[in-house]
Formats: sequence, C-alpha cells, structure tokens
Amino acid sequence: MGNNQHDVPDIVVGRLPIYLRALSAMQAGGKHYTSSHELAEWLGISSAQIRKDLSHIGEFGKQGTGYSVSGLHEQLRQILHLDREWPLIVVGAGNIGSAVASYTGFAQRGFRVVALFDHDPQKIGTQAGPFTVRDNEEIPSFVKGNHVLHAMIAVPAQYAQEVADLLVASGIQGILNYAPINLSVPEGVHVEYIDPVLHLQKMTYYFD
Amino acid sequence: MGNNQHDVPDIVVGRLPIYLRALSAMQAGGKHYTSSHELAEWLGISSAQIRKDLSHIGEFGKQGTGYSVSGLHEQLRQILHLDREWPLIVVGAGNIGSAVASYTGFAQRGFRVVALFDHDPQKIGTQAGPFTVRDNEEIPSFVKGNHVLHAMIAVPAQYAQEVADLLVASGIQGILNYAPINLSVPEGVHVEYIDPVLHLQKMTYYFD
Repeated sequence: MGNNQHDVPDIVVGRLPIYLRALSAMQAGGKHYTSSHELAEWLGISSAQIRKDLSHIGEFGKQGTGYSVSGLHEQLRQILHLDREWPLIVVGAGNIGSAVASYTGFAQRGFRVVALFDHDPQKIGTQAGPFTVRDNEEIPSFVKGNHVLHAMIAVPAQYAQEVADLLVASGIQGILNYAPINLSVPEGVHVEYIDPVLHLQKMTYYFD
Repeated sequence: MGNNQHDVPDIVVGRLPIYLRALSAMQAGGKHYTSSHELAEWLGISSAQIRKDLSHIGEFGKQGTGYSVSGLHEQLRQILHLDREWPLIVVGAGNIGSAVASYTGFAQRGFRVVALFDHDPQKIGTQAGPFTVRDNEEIPSFVKGNHVLHAMIAVPAQYAQEVADLLVASGIQGILNYAPINLSVPEGVHVEYIDPVLHLQKMTYYFD
C-alpha cells in the first residue's frame, strides 16, 4: 500500500514518530488495542488531535475497539519508510559525537550508524566505541559508495556550516545538527536540531 | 522590569530561546540592529510570526532601524530568567550522560552541571570528565542542599520513570529526558524530551 508523498502536513509528520514510539512501547507491553484517549494520556496530546493526525494517514479507530496496536504500528513504519534500515554517519568524534555514534537506541528503530568522521589528525585512526574514526576528507566517497542519506553533525558551532556544506555536496539529504547554530542548506535538504540548552531555557521561563 | 508569569503562550515561550540563540550569534558577529525579516531568514520562521511572538514580550521593532540586538537579547534573557546561572544535575553516567555532563555549551547560556549520578556500583566513585560519579541515593539531599531545580535523565528507558519519580520527590521541577519514553509527572513539573531517532524518522517520510 504505497503512500502518496507530501500529502501529510509537515507538522503532522513530526508527530507520527511519537505515535510510533508509544505504539512500540504498547506492543512490548503486550497490548493489542488502544484508543485516541489512551494515546492522549500517554503523550499529552489531545485525543481530537490524535484522531485528526491519524485520519491523514487513512487510519480511523473503530468505535468500541479503537486502533489495532500492531496494525497502526506497521502502517506508521511503512509511511515513515522505516520498513528498512537507513545507514547514518556521524561527523565529529568529540564527547557528544562519540556517544551518539555508540548509542544502542538506533537498532530496531530504522537506523544504523555506519561511520564516524573527524577532521582532527589526533583523532583520525583512533577507536571510539565500535568505530575507527575516519578523515572528513573521506566523506564524499563514503556517502556515495554506501548510499548514505542521513548525517549527524556533532562538531563545534564554528565548523558546523562548513561540515553541512560538505555533507550536502556529498549527497546527504537529512542532517541532524547537534551544534547550537542554525544551518543554511539548499531546498530539499532536511535539517533537524538538537540543542539541550533550548529545552532548559524554555523551562526557566516558568521558574522564579 | 519584572515579567508577569504565564502571560506568554507556551508555544511562543518555546521559540524565545531560539531567538535568543540567534541574537547571541549576531552579537558575537558585531551586529547592532536586526529586523524580523533578517531573523526570519536565519531561522526559517516567518517574519510575521516573529513580530507577533516578540510583541507578546512587549518588544516592537522600530520602522527603519528594527530591533536593537543587545536590547532584545537582554530582554529575552530576563524574561527567560537567564540573568543568573542555574545548577543542573545529570542522572545516568553512561555514554550519553557522561558526554552531556561534560558538554561545554552550557556555560554562558544560563546553566552549569553540578553533579552526575548513577545507580551502578561499578560506576559510583569513578571519574567521568570533571565529575566523580555519585550514588543515586544521594540525589534527594544533594538537590535540596544545592537548590537544584533542573535535571537531565540519561538512563535506559526501563529505569527512566523511577528516576523521574525520585527526582520529583527530591524537588526537581524541570526534567530533560534523553530516554526514549514518555514520562508521567505531577502537574507543575516540566518535562522536555530529546530523542534523536524521532528527528531522523521524521526526515525519512520524505525519502524514498
């Protein structure tokens, strides 16, 4: 059951992985059916929003039984193209990059880190978890040779844009940026950001 | 110039740290004035949205000159209560927890990690970057004794809820959770989430 690209609004696409994660947890807990109300309680998203979001992907809960956990789980995996394993590279072999490259949480969620790069001659060739750190200069050939579309940037902020440029020129189409700056990329390249400080600063608004 | 709590919508509060980050970068680059259009271009947020967001905090750009970078920067720092340094603890001394605890990016953005905890006797007492790993059992007394309000959870998913319960019981009011599960906390406690896989999964929707 193919899925028509780009017919789900971007904001809804952003919530689908959250539903998938909750369904995975339910499945692991042996649950067979769920409802928009139960999902709402788990996730802090309103049940009306959840029903509306899921109707975008053609899934409507049945009165009385609700949603099949495994059915909805499988459908979300297909729509998000997670019915395969995507290779992923990490650029930056510092604390964060090395920790993320070794993170075991990618398995069974659709991704596998296949290489870790750095530009520092002191780091190139050293071992970081399961990876021997490779030279940034190998990025273009590695990305093309291994059909890699996703990369994480975990370099200091002042190098992040030049690394992004190199990644895009090499064929990377999705960047997850851990450096605390906004990147400029051509249309069609997706960038997502992780900056723990933004989350902490948001909370302190509410603190005295 | 005190700020009336809770008069800014939550969704707008979430964008204020993003504006602050951009203004810090502009300040570092020697820029004195900016406009909603320039911020829009940096951030990929519409200029109308930016003007509306900033009007919530009583800041209106002037025709012709726009916003004062340092003035707006200072005002955002005050509204977000970042005109001080907040102590922060990290629970979980694995790869991610140790890397985050040692992350140098908190300095000058309002936070300082003051302790790293774990429940594993093999890790307690060992050195992780600048920290000697402390026993989780010390969390309640440490949090109270040091007036800590923020904590990061970087433990495996199956332990995250019990750690959250301990943190809340100890007086923590803001949790940044790196474990890939949704936490259940009492009203008034703020939880934010970091899960790199969610960001990657969102991108793959657009890939074939």
